[in-house]
Amino acid sequence: MGRIICAGLGPGDPDLISIRADRAIRQARHLAYFRKRGRQGQARRIVEGMIAPGTAEYPMEYPVTTEIPFDSPDYNALLAAFYDDWAARLAGLAASGDVVVLCEGDPFFYGSFMHLYVRLRGLVEIEVIPGIPGMAGCWNATGQPITWGDDVLSVLMGTLPEADLLRHMRGSDALVVMKTGRNLPKIRRALARAGRLEAAWLIERGTMPGQRLARLAEVEDGDCPYFAIVMVHGQGRRPVAMREAAE
Amino acid sequence: MGRIICAGLGPGDPDLISIRADRAIRQARHLAYFRKRGRQGQARRIVEGMIAPGTAEYPMEYPVTTEIPFDSPDYNALLAAFYDDWAARLAGLAASGDVVVLCEGDPFFYGSFMHLYVRLRGLVEIEVIPGIPGMAGCWNATGQPITWGDDVLSVLMGTLPEADLLRHMRGSDALVVMKTGRNLPKIRRALARAGRLEAAWLIERGTMPGQRLARLAEVEDGDCPYFAIVMVHGQGRRPVAMREAAE
Repeated sequence: MGRIICAGLGPGDPDLISIRADRAIRQARHLAYFRKRGRQGQARRIVEGMIAPGTAEYPMEYPVTTEIPFDSPDYNALLAAFYDDWAARLAGLAASGDVVVLCEGDPFFYGSFMHLYVRLRGLVEIEVIPGIPGMAGCWNATGQPITWGDDVLSVLMGTLPEADLLRHMRGSDALVVMKTGRNLPKIRRALARAGRLEAAWLIERGTMPGQRLARLAEVEDGDCPYFAIVMVHGQGRRPVAMREAAE
Repeated sequence: MGRIICAGLGPGDPDLISIRADRAIRQARHLAYFRKRGRQGQARRIVEGMIAPGTAEYPMEYPVTTEIPFDSPDYNALLAAFYDDWAARLAGLAASGDVVVLCEGDPFFYGSFMHLYVRLRGLVEIEVIPGIPGMAGCWNATGQPITWGDDVLSVLMGTLPEADLLRHMRGSDALVVMKTGRNLPKIRRALARAGRLEAAWLIERGTMPGQRLARLAEVEDGDCPYFAIVMVHGQGRRPVAMREAAE
């Protein structure tokens, strides 16, 4: 009986994969990864050139694309059946040896793998290898620390209601906003209302070829893919006692 | 003229260092790292066995320990002089070749390196290699995703005032609290007031030998080192439109 090994790929540069995940990927004989129908897929692209000859590949193609998210009442059921199906197939494959599942970023940080994980846990032995989260690749690309001192960092999804975004944008020092795309106008409004739009960056493909870094205020609303990340750096909030000593 | 290369070490297991940082560390001829006076230091311990013979080592020993944080009016000046001194020394070393500076976790995420970085930027070429943040090693150790769906994650420092902690603990789905140690009673009170104490974990040395994982409610207040992390997992907040469709 083999294991399911989920290999966190990090932000996109293959050189930023961990030693352990790199080894697992190169030794894989069964390799699975999510992708949109008809695309190569970002995860598979990252490991190009690392796959041993003869490795069997299992592209797990989403039944819906992120371009039509959550607007059908059937969405939930469709996606659940998709994960059920692949969990069963991967468990079947694991009966004859290890199966490596690729996961961009860190698998336990907004990773798609967890939908398989909750279905497979208890049935198959699972190893999850952490990765550098995509957001860390993006703040690295900006060449500035995202947080220091006593900064509070909040990680938000662009899909949240504007009032929720605004509350966190006002109450936190450093901000990361994921799931941007067509939510960008709402994210931009909330940042402006919080007085933080001028300090915001938009980062695409952090650490990858085609990396793009721009001031959010200078980017058009229509010009933002779903996976781009909006970021506001903390300014290094000073610890309370230190602040008091200085005053 | 060489470069300053800051190598993010990740959460502690040397197998979780990135391919690029691993290579930089093994090729280093000048290697610097922070540590407390009289200790080997966590960063140096992680790379034990990876250092080439003949490599010159530069332990940068903090003038104060974390056990007496921020309670002297001289603290600020003392630490600034320490960073000034080491920035000058590393810049001098870089004149004759690359200098690798070790940094636990990810250098741009609450890393000590940024105090050197702000002093060296513009004077010396600097490369910062991201790493898996320590908190990712800790949530990996719990075997549960820290966030999924539309969860909001807030990263808090235990040094913050209790009212600030409470506000974020009430308003966010997933929580990470760093700089715990003697702040644990305050963190525990805030979690209890937010109704989240029962769901909280305390993790020490995630991914390292001596890893310890406990329900916070079952840990004594005095039994918590400064670097231990408190964590509450998100429950997978569902996107708004999906929630509406299901209702």
